[in-house]
Amino acid sequence: MGGGEAAAEETQVTAQEKETNVSLKDLSKKLDEFAKARDWEPYHSPRNLLLAMVGEVGELSEIFQWRGEVAKGLPNWEESDKEHLGEELSDVLLYLIRLSDVCGIDLGEAATKKIVKNAIKYPAPKLV
Amino acid sequence: MGGGEAAAEETQVTAQEKETNVSLKDLSKKLDEFAKARDWEPYHSPRNLLLAMVGEVGELSEIFQWRGEVAKGLPNWEESDKEHLGEELSDVLLYLIRLSDVCGIDLGEAATKKIVKNAIKYPAPKLV
Amino acid sequence: MGGGEAAAEETQVTAQEKETNVSLKDLSKKLDEFAKARDWEPYHSPRNLLLAMVGEVGELSEIFQWRGEVAKGLPNWEESDKEHLGEELSDVLLYLIRLSDVCGIDLGEAATKKIVKNAIKYPAPKLV
Amino acid sequence: MGGGEAAAEETQVTAQEKETNVSLKDLSKKLDEFAKARDWEPYHSPRNLLLAMVGEVGELSEIFQWRGEVAKGLPNWEESDKEHLGEELSDVLLYLIRLSDVCGIDLGEAATKKIVKNAIKYPAPKLV
Repeated sequence: MGGGEAAAEETQVTAQEKETNVSLKDLSKKLDEFAKARDWEPYHSPRNLLLAMVGEVGELSEIFQWRGEVAKGLPNWEESDKEHLGEELSDVLLYLIRLSDVCGIDLGEAATKKIVKNAIKYPAPKLV
Repeated sequence: MGGGEAAAEETQVTAQEKETNVSLKDLSKKLDEFAKARDWEPYHSPRNLLLAMVGEVGELSEIFQWRGEVAKGLPNWEESDKEHLGEELSDVLLYLIRLSDVCGIDLGEAATKKIVKNAIKYPAPKLV
Repeated sequence: MGGGEAAAEETQVTAQEKETNVSLKDLSKKLDEFAKARDWEPYHSPRNLLLAMVGEVGELSEIFQWRGEVAKGLPNWEESDKEHLGEELSDVLLYLIRLSDVCGIDLGEAATKKIVKNAIKYPAPKLV
Repeated sequence: MGGGEAAAEETQVTAQEKETNVSLKDLSKKLDEFAKARDWEPYHSPRNLLLAMVGEVGELSEIFQWRGEVAKGLPNWEESDKEHLGEELSDVLLYLIRLSDVCGIDLGEAATKKIVKNAIKYPAPKLV
């Protein structure tokens, strides 16, 4: 096996790992390019994006509204319902990232700090 | 400069890069450990987490409610208001990630697919 | 003109006035009959109705999401958009009333008390 | 018993009935006076009120978030929790009414029409 093959394989692994390890920055960059390519930037004001996100939270809630309590892992859900759910969760995420961006907030950094703050507010009673 | 120093420097760079390039998987893992360490797992049912997220969306909206239109970048906002905003954006994100997890949805993968789907639905009229 | 005509006219006026002076109790009663006639009562649990209401709040937000700041009275809105808005506002109201009902809360009484409480919390600086 | 007493009694009955039969118009009028007396009108733009309502929907959701499925009538709830619930339901209602008003929508009329529309959309399979 030559060096070229090894390098190609390494790249492949990295690409695969990257796909299953999506960062907030990656998504943010894609959304920025997406808006620019469609001249949507003038519409992406903070309150417009916030209301768009509330709209998606509504669509997410509609999936759960008549089901009564839902068990973890969604047993007995149709595959198509799970896919729909994945899309609505994504829509909320994408508007949330975009909203953070136009506000100049680094969402990944803020979330990391918030977890630390929560850990201080709610001390763990035991080690795991 | 010895090899040891070079390695240490490389690690430092990677750690720094990681901090500014937070992945959904990293946050998901932290939230899982957080819930386990506090015996919160029984409370983290899908609809409980969804309603908790709606609660945070409400707190996020409260920040924007009496401000009229808000300009991108939040000019003239107090630093403390921006920090508060970062925390509320984070709270929505953290419940969204946790909700996805207990539903067995890979949010990063779903979001990546959703962007591709959106690109097909809304073709870009121009190249950038 | 005989007394009968006068009485009929009076009734008509009352009916007309009633239509423009809809009470929460009237709507509550209609919704209760509506659900009973369709065997929907088993689905009308508190959290199901709450999530259904969140869904409608999302649809309401979608109407406003890309418009930037909107002036009072909605100048320049199409008549069809105003009608759509009236329907979404109604959907939120109807689920809110139904949610209150299944929780055993008298919404009209609660709202009247809340206004009094707000008046104490925020004293009016002037008489009107 | 003279006519005056009868009339007084009738008025009393009407007033009592009115209190337990609160109309949307009554609440709307009170909210309008409330805002005028506090010079709050400039803040009551449609999107400000919408976001304020979303904030209250969030507070309402917080009451239900960690409870799992909740039975009708809220058995086992503390009286103070029921009162808190009544207040949050009211807050959503009051902003919804105020939002309708500044948009020039007659909410009672719109809701009455929406019930009729729903009855056509979902025909009752049986008479009650």
